[in-house]
Amino acid sequence: MDLLPLLRPQTVAVVGASDDPSKLGFHVIKSLTFWPYKGRIHPVNPKRASVMGIPAHKDLREVESQIDLAIIVVPNKAVEGVIAACLERHVRSIVLITAGFKESEGKEGALLQERLKGLVADRIPVVGPNTFGMVSYHQRLNASFTPEFSLASPGGAAIISQSGGISHLMGFLAMEQDIGLSYVVGLGNRLTVDFQHMLYHLAADEFTKVAGLYVEGIEEPKMLLKAIKDVSSKIPVVVMKAGKGELADKASLSHTGSLAGNQQNYRFGVLQSGGLVVDDVHSFLDLLKAYETLTPPKGNRVAILSGQAGPGIVALDSCVELGLHVKPFGWKTLSEIEEILPPMAIRSNPVDLGPLWYDEFALLKVVKKVLKDPEIDAVLFLMMFASANLNSIPVLLEGLLDERPQKPIFTCIMAPGQIWKKEIREGEEKGIFCNFPTPERAAKACAGMLLLERRRHRQTKNGRTSWT
Amino acid sequence: MDLLPLLRPQTVAVVGASDDPSKLGFHVIKSLTFWPYKGRIHPVNPKRASVMGIPAHKDLREVESQIDLAIIVVPNKAVEGVIAACLERHVRSIVLITAGFKESEGKEGALLQERLKGLVADRIPVVGPNTFGMVSYHQRLNASFTPEFSLASPGGAAIISQSGGISHLMGFLAMEQDIGLSYVVGLGNRLTVDFQHMLYHLAADEFTKVAGLYVEGIEEPKMLLKAIKDVSSKIPVVVMKAGKGELADKASLSHTGSLAGNQQNYRFGVLQSGGLVVDDVHSFLDLLKAYETLTPPKGNRVAILSGQAGPGIVALDSCVELGLHVKPFGWKTLSEIEEILPPMAIRSNPVDLGPLWYDEFALLKVVKKVLKDPEIDAVLFLMMFASANLNSIPVLLEGLLDERPQKPIFTCIMAPGQIWKKEIREGEEKGIFCNFPTPERAAKACAGMLLLERRRHRQTKNGRTSWT
Repeated sequence: MDLLPLLRPQTVAVVGASDDPSKLGFHVIKSLTFWPYKGRIHPVNPKRASVMGIPAHKDLREVESQIDLAIIVVPNKAVEGVIAACLERHVRSIVLITAGFKESEGKEGALLQERLKGLVADRIPVVGPNTFGMVSYHQRLNASFTPEFSLASPGGAAIISQSGGISHLMGFLAMEQDIGLSYVVGLGNRLTVDFQHMLYHLAADEFTKVAGLYVEGIEEPKMLLKAIKDVSSKIPVVVMKAGKGELADKASLSHTGSLAGNQQNYRFGVLQSGGLVVDDVHSFLDLLKAYETLTPPKGNRVAILSGQAGPGIVALDSCVELGLHVKPFGWKTLSEIEEILPPMAIRSNPVDLGPLWYDEFALLKVVKKVLKDPEIDAVLFLMMFASANLNSIPVLLEGLLDERPQKPIFTCIMAPGQIWKKEIREGEEKGIFCNFPTPERAAKACAGMLLLERRRHRQTKNGRTSWT
Repeated sequence: MDLLPLLRPQTVAVVGASDDPSKLGFHVIKSLTFWPYKGRIHPVNPKRASVMGIPAHKDLREVESQIDLAIIVVPNKAVEGVIAACLERHVRSIVLITAGFKESEGKEGALLQERLKGLVADRIPVVGPNTFGMVSYHQRLNASFTPEFSLASPGGAAIISQSGGISHLMGFLAMEQDIGLSYVVGLGNRLTVDFQHMLYHLAADEFTKVAGLYVEGIEEPKMLLKAIKDVSSKIPVVVMKAGKGELADKASLSHTGSLAGNQQNYRFGVLQSGGLVVDDVHSFLDLLKAYETLTPPKGNRVAILSGQAGPGIVALDSCVELGLHVKPFGWKTLSEIEEILPPMAIRSNPVDLGPLWYDEFALLKVVKKVLKDPEIDAVLFLMMFASANLNSIPVLLEGLLDERPQKPIFTCIMAPGQIWKKEIREGEEKGIFCNFPTPERAAKACAGMLLLERRRHRQTKNGRTSWT
């Protein structure tokens, strides 16, 4: 299925466009015009000559140019007619926002969806029904009913979600954490476009560095697992699976031929295919952020460099728990650090930089020495702001920009208000380090990358896995 | 040990006060004057007549008035002399910021601390040495070297920490999450003031609603456990214990008569005493925030009300995992909700409010009905902003302010930028709900409160536990 017309359309029609803020069709037009979208927009509304200042058409059939994408936001009973018009007009892709299909109580919605399925077959990619829409960040296309998705920054993380609510949660958290996004797609009821179609597209996409899938329950898990297996050498795949309980298990059993909802089976299946299942929203987004920013570590030997002792101990606890190897430095690194650090410091790893927490140039030297240690694969760097160390992060950033480190640096750099925000942003944008709000989350992102890389590597080496 | 002179001093002397920004004595004066502190400040500096515009004394002995608190920030070798002067002048309490004692390599620091211990005995409360200081929020007293601690809001959560770095991390995270603080105290090497002394004070303190302890390794865990047992009926005690690994265990074994560093023993001991050990920084702060804002639930029957289905499912997963009971509503609540909700909604619990996610008054009605259900102890309310539901949270807040709910509401309300920030803040300040950034963390805070309440309750009922 060719998803280019969907994700990079030149012409977009909105069927159900509206000037009335109480209608979703209003918010869709607002979203499309939030960014200066370069393609053409054709509102369709039988009652109005223009919508929000854009000339409108009474019917989709009146739009003269080729339509790459039709966004449909009419009541559910009118959807069948609009889709028929789309097919007639050779519309190339559809985002069907309207709800009231398979997800609703009673049989009517499910029957309606069955009929749509029959009508569409595989003739055209349809995202939805029952979706908030989707956002294609590098095209500056916000094809959703939430203009505020456009406030997030373009980047390399794609979020493909079965749930619109989770898409919103993750989109807004991504803004807070400065995670750059390539796409946010709400698959909804997946009339034709499913996770696997998106994965194949993302693996070939020049903007996407990592794919994150939020999965609730799907009919054909084998298709998803096959897709993960096929793409995992090209692109890391992170999965969050919701619906873990017994109730979810029972619901899943009714789908014959499908993988049970059992979380352990799922986790194992995805891992065997070269992906990784994470447990919660933070772990999901943190791993996306890490891949969006850093090159993965080549091994599990981690150095902990901490401006203050406490956060170093918390990080050490996490590393040990997560199977990261925090081993004492070799004699060379140790003697080099001894020269820089005053007698009071703990130099063994974790390094307590304490006594030089406001000697920023010595601090930079220690970080550089440790990055050069051939027995270290990744660095955890922790620094809490304390007024007297205001210069530590600016100097660190400048020093590391000079001599771009080849190893990933996971940081927990924390300061009040806007202090260090600019430096943290710049460090992340230039791929120097990736920042997390707690030492535990920095360590977990490192461990997650390692686990996923091992599976991806094995996947590539063996060609296939035991899961088929 | 009377901690009132320490935590509510009228007169503060700073020994080692400085005008030079490269000295910690500068940052201490800056911290003390960041807020308009109502007491008197006496800088002590032999070389200057004034420090930052405040008249200075050459020697502590020259200060004529009674000194409630002396903050000492001179080099470690000069500390003994300053403490002798403090004792001579009948100074009533000390914050000893200077490092280079027991925590440093070599024997010299440990010997220095031993001598201080001999000098001071139990004649005066000393916080430190090797501390960033402490902040007493309701007194507007920032007795630390970090003026930016004053940016946090006064409130009911006390953070007592062995680590200055962790104090900074938690202080800044508390600001981000709008957690109101009563005290942040860095105990450092605990020359005389230890966790137990702080606990007894906090239990009697009118400002403190919850005590959070960050513990690395202590010599007399039995004293701490006894204190938790003594105060837990008055004040909830949350503990984060770092140093979990084998190395920590080994280090602990050398302290005869003390509890091993083993995390499980610790966790059990604290729980038996009526407190709770949490695993990570987020869980620690979230539980402090919950206690600072809400009355604990009386039982484990939780209703999940979700504006969008996905976050409700994620919350359900967490609740099941955490032992919260998400049971179907009784006929009365169900029939009342049926009347309000349109046919498409899932009404069973979790309730998918989806179809009314932009009908804010219907939404408020559902929340009120569920709060009245006698078989519900707590509500998880989840709502993602989506442009068309802009009014949902303002209307919810106003409606709940009218008729203050008697049950705790744990929320995950998420919006971009400043949207809903004012309403969330107001809801928390008035104790209507408590907000968390993910559904998992909202559920975990609820479960944490329940577990801690059960232990506190059992503690009160039995008078004593099996742990002695």
